[in-house]
Amino acid sequence: MKNIGIIGLGLIGGSLGLELREKGFRTFGVSQREKTRDRALERGIVDEISEGYSLLNQCDLIFICTPIEAIISTVQDLIPYLKPETIITDVGSVKGKIVPKLSELWSNFIGGHPMAGTTQSGVDSGFIGLFDNAPYVLTPTEQTPQKAIDLMTEIIKLLNSRLYFCSPEEHDQAVAWISHLPVMISGSLIQSCLKEKNLKVLELAKNLASSGFKDTSRVGGGNPELGLMMAKYNSQELLRSLLEYRENLDQIIEDINNENWTNLEQKLKQNQQARPNFL
Amino acid sequence: MKNIGIIGLGLIGGSLGLELREKGFRTFGVSQREKTRDRALERGIVDEISEGYSLLNQCDLIFICTPIEAIISTVQDLIPYLKPETIITDVGSVKGKIVPKLSELWSNFIGGHPMAGTTQSGVDSGFIGLFDNAPYVLTPTEQTPQKAIDLMTEIIKLLNSRLYFCSPEEHDQAVAWISHLPVMISGSLIQSCLKEKNLKVLELAKNLASSGFKDTSRVGGGNPELGLMMAKYNSQELLRSLLEYRENLDQIIEDINNENWTNLEQKLKQNQQARPNFL
Repeated sequence: MKNIGIIGLGLIGGSLGLELREKGFRTFGVSQREKTRDRALERGIVDEISEGYSLLNQCDLIFICTPIEAIISTVQDLIPYLKPETIITDVGSVKGKIVPKLSELWSNFIGGHPMAGTTQSGVDSGFIGLFDNAPYVLTPTEQTPQKAIDLMTEIIKLLNSRLYFCSPEEHDQAVAWISHLPVMISGSLIQSCLKEKNLKVLELAKNLASSGFKDTSRVGGGNPELGLMMAKYNSQELLRSLLEYRENLDQIIEDINNENWTNLEQKLKQNQQARPNFL
Repeated sequence: MKNIGIIGLGLIGGSLGLELREKGFRTFGVSQREKTRDRALERGIVDEISEGYSLLNQCDLIFICTPIEAIISTVQDLIPYLKPETIITDVGSVKGKIVPKLSELWSNFIGGHPMAGTTQSGVDSGFIGLFDNAPYVLTPTEQTPQKAIDLMTEIIKLLNSRLYFCSPEEHDQAVAWISHLPVMISGSLIQSCLKEKNLKVLELAKNLASSGFKDTSRVGGGNPELGLMMAKYNSQELLRSLLEYRENLDQIIEDINNENWTNLEQKLKQNQQARPNFL
């Protein structure tokens, strides 16, 4: 039976703890806040928890579930306490700026991204079932030890997630398309509506907006810290997708300007046909 | 008690018939298709129905519920049969290209737009409750008779809709922002994803896409005829909103390019604050 460490006991870390303890693993947590430690024990997220990292020296696998900007510094602080065979994995939503650095710090590392979430956060937000049927991406490199791949594969199967393998770069390209680009284009919708100078029209727009506007603007009106993090940590791929997007938008503007209805209709039909492949 | 005519017995016309008959009006329909006539009677949408327009000569108010492109020709065909005091209203989702022409054809006209819908269409799709708490916009002009405004106001109250008054132009500007622009930017998302040349990344994107992509792409992957109609009949306002949108998108691209995170964060925060005002 394996011992599993979890640093960061929010939605992802907390859900991992609950789920893995239920599957028979022993879980060990670290938190600097006493309230979080108490609550994590009460909720059964961890078997043991401490303020410092030394508790984790008995772990076979450690999940780094902190916010993205804290991942690298956390691993730096953690490694003096570890035995060399301990595997580290992270759950960050970008990989290209994380995986090479962590692989350098700790060779027994494998990058991962469980693509599950709710709008909740904190030690009370985790629950059993979060990962059920959700994608879980692993991004091993040529240097990643086979043992790390095997153990993570086993665990992801236990979580009942859909496992995908790709390179850190492929991961970041794919999530730019389906997650980070939508946030920016959805946010631009809200931004541009607010630019309406005729206040009667703006007021009317607010009153008439219904499900179409609601859905299209949803991710753009979400947590600003998350949006900022995507832009900061996946800027290259996000920019690439934004530029491609703008080119497509320009073609639509041109079609309408030139009253090229055949072209526009073709695009709209293609969209209708293609969308189900993403769902 | 008023006699009400309905031309076009799909979702909007059918729901109007069911609703208004329930409120005690007598309703009269016209359809060239025997099946539609039979079904409209069976479902209780109309009290009487015929193939030709002459049945409608007893109506006080006639709703034109055809697709947008048929509204003007329908009214042209209809007016030889009407008594001059009959009020005509339409339910088209654009007003600037419809209202001036219909006002010219029939002075006793008032433009309207009930903003309710489902994905269903046809004579079996209408139902009581469709207009409940939905916006219903009336676009009277200086020439619109007060009697037409008063009768429509009374009926819209009976439908329990939220009534708004504005000019045809203001209507088209507002719906460009909250309905027609979202379709184009949402469709461009699907278009641009399909441009990904790395097939492994495209496949991965399809597998990883979840609720964020689903919501942002929904209206862009909808009925192509509707999208085309918006572009054709509201091209001027749609173009204006698209150009404003592109300017905002360019600013976001610039922020990311220049790593101007303060600017970007400000925009994302503004979006989060502003969105609830549209819901």
